[in-house]
Amino acid sequence: MRPPCDDAGGTVCLAQGGQKCHTGALTGDDAWELTTMTTTKTNPGNFFEDFRFGQVITHATPRTVTDGDVALYTSLYGPRFAVQSSDAFARAIGYPQAPVDDLLAFHVVFGKTVPDISLNAIANLGYAGGRFLVPVYPGDTLSTVSEVIGLKENSNRETGTVYVRSTGRNQKGEVVLEYARWVMVRKRDKDAPAPEPIVPKLADRVDPADIGRAVPRLNMAKYDLALAGSAYCWGDYEAGERIDHVDGMTLEEAEHQMATRLYQNTAKVHFNQHTEAKGRFGKRIVYGGVMISLARALSFNGLANAFHIAAINGGRHVAPLFAGDTVYAWSEILEKAELAGRTDVGALRTRLVAVKNQDCAAFPLRRDGGDYADGVILDLDIWVVLPR
Amino acid sequence: MRPPCDDAGGTVCLAQGGQKCHTGALTGDDAWELTTMTTTKTNPGNFFEDFRFGQVITHATPRTVTDGDVALYTSLYGPRFAVQSSDAFARAIGYPQAPVDDLLAFHVVFGKTVPDISLNAIANLGYAGGRFLVPVYPGDTLSTVSEVIGLKENSNRETGTVYVRSTGRNQKGEVVLEYARWVMVRKRDKDAPAPEPIVPKLADRVDPADIGRAVPRLNMAKYDLALAGSAYCWGDYEAGERIDHVDGMTLEEAEHQMATRLYQNTAKVHFNQHTEAKGRFGKRIVYGGVMISLARALSFNGLANAFHIAAINGGRHVAPLFAGDTVYAWSEILEKAELAGRTDVGALRTRLVAVKNQDCAAFPLRRDGGDYADGVILDLDIWVVLPR
Amino acid sequence: MRPPCDDAGGTVCLAQGGQKCHTGALTGDDAWELTTMTTTKTNPGNFFEDFRFGQVITHATPRTVTDGDVALYTSLYGPRFAVQSSDAFARAIGYPQAPVDDLLAFHVVFGKTVPDISLNAIANLGYAGGRFLVPVYPGDTLSTVSEVIGLKENSNRETGTVYVRSTGRNQKGEVVLEYARWVMVRKRDKDAPAPEPIVPKLADRVDPADIGRAVPRLNMAKYDLALAGSAYCWGDYEAGERIDHVDGMTLEEAEHQMATRLYQNTAKVHFNQHTEAKGRFGKRIVYGGVMISLARALSFNGLANAFHIAAINGGRHVAPLFAGDTVYAWSEILEKAELAGRTDVGALRTRLVAVKNQDCAAFPLRRDGGDYADGVILDLDIWVVLPR
Repeated sequence: MRPPCDDAGGTVCLAQGGQKCHTGALTGDDAWELTTMTTTKTNPGNFFEDFRFGQVITHATPRTVTDGDVALYTSLYGPRFAVQSSDAFARAIGYPQAPVDDLLAFHVVFGKTVPDISLNAIANLGYAGGRFLVPVYPGDTLSTVSEVIGLKENSNRETGTVYVRSTGRNQKGEVVLEYARWVMVRKRDKDAPAPEPIVPKLADRVDPADIGRAVPRLNMAKYDLALAGSAYCWGDYEAGERIDHVDGMTLEEAEHQMATRLYQNTAKVHFNQHTEAKGRFGKRIVYGGVMISLARALSFNGLANAFHIAAINGGRHVAPLFAGDTVYAWSEILEKAELAGRTDVGALRTRLVAVKNQDCAAFPLRRDGGDYADGVILDLDIWVVLPR
Repeated sequence: MRPPCDDAGGTVCLAQGGQKCHTGALTGDDAWELTTMTTTKTNPGNFFEDFRFGQVITHATPRTVTDGDVALYTSLYGPRFAVQSSDAFARAIGYPQAPVDDLLAFHVVFGKTVPDISLNAIANLGYAGGRFLVPVYPGDTLSTVSEVIGLKENSNRETGTVYVRSTGRNQKGEVVLEYARWVMVRKRDKDAPAPEPIVPKLADRVDPADIGRAVPRLNMAKYDLALAGSAYCWGDYEAGERIDHVDGMTLEEAEHQMATRLYQNTAKVHFNQHTEAKGRFGKRIVYGGVMISLARALSFNGLANAFHIAAINGGRHVAPLFAGDTVYAWSEILEKAELAGRTDVGALRTRLVAVKNQDCAAFPLRRDGGDYADGVILDLDIWVVLPR
Repeated sequence: MRPPCDDAGGTVCLAQGGQKCHTGALTGDDAWELTTMTTTKTNPGNFFEDFRFGQVITHATPRTVTDGDVALYTSLYGPRFAVQSSDAFARAIGYPQAPVDDLLAFHVVFGKTVPDISLNAIANLGYAGGRFLVPVYPGDTLSTVSEVIGLKENSNRETGTVYVRSTGRNQKGEVVLEYARWVMVRKRDKDAPAPEPIVPKLADRVDPADIGRAVPRLNMAKYDLALAGSAYCWGDYEAGERIDHVDGMTLEEAEHQMATRLYQNTAKVHFNQHTEAKGRFGKRIVYGGVMISLARALSFNGLANAFHIAAINGGRHVAPLFAGDTVYAWSEILEKAELAGRTDVGALRTRLVAVKNQDCAAFPLRRDGGDYADGVILDLDIWVVLPR
């Protein structure tokens, strides 16, 4: 798509005026990947026809996560899990210090993908195969690479679904988390030829054998349940049990904008009232990650010991969330699993449902017809880890 | 209230399926205390009849205070005291580094008590006997224990007053601050029997002999008054003097919500517009600590060298504060005290009054009848420490 | 203006009751400067006739910049420059760690000047001669001194222009940045005599020979363009080129208030709706630094490698910004310069224009008559540094 440097065309060339600007890291395929993203000096985002199966995209802006991010995360959502709140608590049980909230790491890793993957997206269709593999600590630097694992044009020829697997690494190169997501992306040109459709097989759930490694072996004798906020541990929950997390949180524009910028997520719909006023809803749409974090923080009330998200089995943003809405949440225990070789912790597979502007005493989910009930905004299937 | 683990009743048991989940810290009385808080998996809060005289409650979620919290505190209130703003300034005069604002430590310690003490409170009636004993630095982990020091059912039998003394400790077990407060709490069951009324004797003011120890011996030759922002020191203030702090600050919903979540304070009235719309005021009520911090930050203008709050002698939230209100403040010097053995610093007992939506040129406080004047929202009696 | 300490008048004296409160840093001229600021215990700000040519003012509240400030800065504006976002990236190319955003340092240095320079200002008229000389890292403590370099009473005798050069230093005494600005300040007394008018000569632009020293010699082989977010380097830009930064950001009251308090900027118009409701615009006016930071963050899209602001040649806040407005930005490359002895980086002089409530596809700037076009709020002339 982009002419080579000796091309005399109108596009700006990487090497110009005798100066090669990319003496460093850009070589071979990587350089090619990058240049396909930047045919003008501003980033127009990628359209459906810009993606190729197997393409690997190195996303911009590695990000050092700090105590400042942790404080903002607390301030924006109000999580109260002791392991993430207290260095003293975390050290007592075997962490070197308090790890950052799993979802803070997730949002930072995710945010980097937006300029390349979803700037021209119409909808974030789903998540699968998310795994949290290494704890993230303040001081760690996160970066993200995505691979295109599926492509399917829609029958209207105006859009297509792009499937990517995104991988977040720390400064040592360790994979801290990975997940698949699929988004509906506009085509630049309706007449652009459709790629051969490839839809990846994504498992319904992450196998329990593949999770839990981000939790060091814990010294459970030092896990203080009073400080943790609940006496209920892995053994106390049963599949089928439902928990109303009771509390509700009303969201303000400044809050979701600050959250979303913190993750350097640049999706326009979250920030620009001038254009959104003329858009489908007439207002800014809240980043889906904000509803996940709010629901997760609310879930402390009933699942206070479930301090770690080990996997995201699947998830859907069922309806949009807007500033002024009040978010409630409830959980259902779907499944219990022991973790191989671990007597300290076990896993619960839970469905975490977020609902807006109604409480969850009636556990709203679906109507008789099978569609999601009014008010349901999130249906997330996760593995959480808690002491046994 | 809660059945023992071998009970066959409907409540979930701490030990279940052969797994004892609390192999760690819960033993004896502590365990009993905890279990009275968690008869369901979500926390319903305690009602008046759940409290017993002498009861000791270990509150959840120890919290490591960081540079991030300090930055948010600055961002939310705008304090400008040099000792807390500058490591260089603090070190020059004898601190190992800048301590965090006393009220940030107070709010974190206080926030932990809410789920156990005041989740079902109707009103926060007052404070007394607050003392700040050890400086808090970024990296310190704070936790809180409360003791029930008084109980008195109201004549309507629907509510009662609960008096607690709350103690905040750092990770070394040092008491960093303590205070008494009393709250009006709902009864679950009007017919529950009333406890024998016990009303603690709480001193009108903290004795100056008991304050000031959180300030290390200062090298006053290095206390730079130009950098501190004022030439007025302890010797320049006289009892009876009144100071209009001049400036006003308008509060936004996002600001007080972010502040209150930062302290992990979970009181529902601050966060849930969906329910508060149907409540007494039709809107969210601002956490009282926010008005204290705003008034304190405004007091810099006139008391710039009063960098440390040594004690809270007493305090009342006279009227509620809402988003959109503008907070002003004024101070009256009530008393001056030398601190035993200290020639570097002295103490001023000040009345710090916060007023909404009117300036303080006329020092509003009470009407002729003795009731608080319209607009007054806070009447706080504190000891502050400043250079002599 | 202030009586000496042995004066028996009504003003409170620095030495009182036998206690000298300023045993430390206040001596000679410095003390005199300070006392002219504090004739009452609250700061009334300085009026035009309070300034003298050559006066040097040490501003209050040194401020340690931390990771928390950096996180808030990211959260409030959304900058994505890799050098400031990632310790790993910064270290790879030769920084000891990620420096803080140049504008964060600028706002902190600037904020300190407000109580002394612009509390009674009607308008911030312009900037010139700004240079960023030493990187600021988390942990550094910034303080500011200003010198009055010009004074000119206006013909109406009610106001005058005050020119100051402000210098921000770190805890080692190194000058990290300096700039000139001029503000229109009220007179306290119309009949106060006018000083001899002195208008400083301020260069139109900072000479490229005087910039760039805040950038260490970079190891360009490690500068990863994919991670930086763009393949376009110094050699790829040409004078005359214009770049629409495309994205827009809607600003909320809570956001600009939190930003402005973070810098300890106390200008009343940004915070007090109770008084501003009766003011010229009926609402709070956003601190001009917020529009600069928003425009700068937006400029990443098109200038992703321009990670450092080396100089502010000049700048004007053309029109006020209010909460609810959406900010867009565009840049024009005015000039290219090599930096003496540097083959790693070069400088671009750019005009950074911020516009409200309209996109920048048409590069709005001036109308035919020469006045600024509707919607233009900022016209800033800066030197930025980027890899060659």
